[in-house]
Amino acid sequence: MSVSIELAPLDRAAMATVREHLDRLTKPPGSLGRLEALIVQLAGITGSNAPRVEQPAIAVFAADHGVTAQGVSAYPSAVTAQMVANFVAGGAAINVLARAAGAKLVVVDVGVVGPELAVSSRVRAGTRDMTVEPAMTRDEALRAIGIGRDVVGGLVADGCDAIALGEMGIGNTTAASALVALLTGRPPAEVTGRGTGLDDEAVRRKVVVIEAALRLHQPGRGDPLGTLAAVGGLEIAALVGAMLAGGESRIPIILDGFITGAAALVAVGIAPTLAPRLIASHRSAEPGHRVVLEQLGLEPLLDLDLRLGEGSGAALALPLLRAGTLLLAEMATFESAGVSGPPLEGG
Amino acid sequence: MSVSIELAPLDRAAMATVREHLDRLTKPPGSLGRLEALIVQLAGITGSNAPRVEQPAIAVFAADHGVTAQGVSAYPSAVTAQMVANFVAGGAAINVLARAAGAKLVVVDVGVVGPELAVSSRVRAGTRDMTVEPAMTRDEALRAIGIGRDVVGGLVADGCDAIALGEMGIGNTTAASALVALLTGRPPAEVTGRGTGLDDEAVRRKVVVIEAALRLHQPGRGDPLGTLAAVGGLEIAALVGAMLAGGESRIPIILDGFITGAAALVAVGIAPTLAPRLIASHRSAEPGHRVVLEQLGLEPLLDLDLRLGEGSGAALALPLLRAGTLLLAEMATFESAGVSGPPLEGG
Repeated sequence: MSVSIELAPLDRAAMATVREHLDRLTKPPGSLGRLEALIVQLAGITGSNAPRVEQPAIAVFAADHGVTAQGVSAYPSAVTAQMVANFVAGGAAINVLARAAGAKLVVVDVGVVGPELAVSSRVRAGTRDMTVEPAMTRDEALRAIGIGRDVVGGLVADGCDAIALGEMGIGNTTAASALVALLTGRPPAEVTGRGTGLDDEAVRRKVVVIEAALRLHQPGRGDPLGTLAAVGGLEIAALVGAMLAGGESRIPIILDGFITGAAALVAVGIAPTLAPRLIASHRSAEPGHRVVLEQLGLEPLLDLDLRLGEGSGAALALPLLRAGTLLLAEMATFESAGVSGPPLEGG
Repeated sequence: MSVSIELAPLDRAAMATVREHLDRLTKPPGSLGRLEALIVQLAGITGSNAPRVEQPAIAVFAADHGVTAQGVSAYPSAVTAQMVANFVAGGAAINVLARAAGAKLVVVDVGVVGPELAVSSRVRAGTRDMTVEPAMTRDEALRAIGIGRDVVGGLVADGCDAIALGEMGIGNTTAASALVALLTGRPPAEVTGRGTGLDDEAVRRKVVVIEAALRLHQPGRGDPLGTLAAVGGLEIAALVGAMLAGGESRIPIILDGFITGAAALVAVGIAPTLAPRLIASHRSAEPGHRVVLEQLGLEPLLDLDLRLGEGSGAALALPLLRAGTLLLAEMATFESAGVSGPPLEGG
């Protein structure tokens, strides 16, 4: 069984209208740099000449990974559940950043091991060890995708007009590196990094683990769902679903770092016209993230060497999106303000 | 007469305390990347273990430039006054961005030509043409510095805990390029750009104008005030004063782009220990800005190809500062949240 989704292309008319309006605002044409491209993209995504980011939400999906049995993380697997408890208590970085950005935060347990504390839609308690067997069945992956879809669908029904995505899952940089290696054909060593803080020797062991998993699983290059099931994670699958729902709802989808980027590669495999609806918030310190961004054709807004996950980079980028929409909505035009207009071409 | 100011060094004790606390927060050590360095810098600047950015202000200084007689700008000089009117009416980019950042905006006319519309502290109606005579007398430059100092002093007295700086002045990229060339010894062609939108031919003419001014004025390398008076601007002088006041008041000083950067070179010439109290908000599209940042030893937070001025980049960076202070203040520690701590070194 294969899944393929056709999304509407960006709204070229809205983009042209907004591009033209930007040049009437009281600033030298193009002087807001990449913020202008972002504003035009928001118009294309939403199909509106006046896109808004008034009710952003951050959805964080959490799950555990069987591959942690192979010693691929600096932290024990139990930290996933502990951090979910921290999210629920409001003490994690993403709680602070969501409050700072005025964004609603939803934490969804799609596969944590341990007590169920957050919004629970647990498909199973952690994936299987990808070095021994597929991490998920195709059905489990599809169920996790459905959960991500439902979460974002519900948020949109409540008025959410921009979705920022994050994750928590000890071991999930291993899953993401395996996914990126399979989906791009790059060698694991090139797309594997320190995760939460491995030293050089531990990174080499992590690469060996990923190589072992890749020898075991050889899904076709045209089978993103099979790849996801083989070496992905439940939270990564939920992220894929969240992106598909964001694409269908025509709201901007703000990626975080490496894990959400790996999920985006899967999502674009399923819905090839999704990519222009994605916004890369930041360039992560994980080396594989560069490969992901290149593959997706995305240029991140921030470059702050973040490597926390949780949606932290996406949350930090929200004020830039909001600022862009407000500039478009509230700035005076040369005409309305009585300011002498831009010079003639070449003047 | 020479001016030299000794500022307190950063508070090393506060920096050490905050650095240590950051490693106790529920995140892998260092995973907030450059945001962690920023938080530590804010502690050092303010001398507080809990630095706050609760009442940021944006001060925009406006003035005209006699050198516009040489045709160095894409816009007529009258646009300075028109844009000040736009600031007062609330329709410019910086008005929108100040509102978005929750920052107080103060617009100060230190030397605009035309009717006085903003807070007026006009030293004179525009500088003289630097290709004919010094742009300002030393006394005029000192008076403009005093105005910038008083503005920031007043804001701090009212509770301002972070100052973002901006400017408006048709012709002021010419003044800034001349200043940067004199203060760094770089050839004008290397530090001169398109400003508000010159084409290649017009940039070449702008370089010739700056070269003519530099042949006329040869202030000593150790005379930042003389350099400022010869080729600077009244708003640039006010920015210098604003930075000195921010340094003395121990609040973070957020630079905008190329013009505020040129002012910072002058300010650091006067107060050599000012540099670590400066925060570079963004890397401007103006080529001279790279030289300025290198000279100041600053790495900008944003890289969005902005070239608007007005303090727009500084305003866009404010949410990052605020997010940093909130993370420090509000995140749970590993101990308080019951999360298994960071791995042992090399683990």
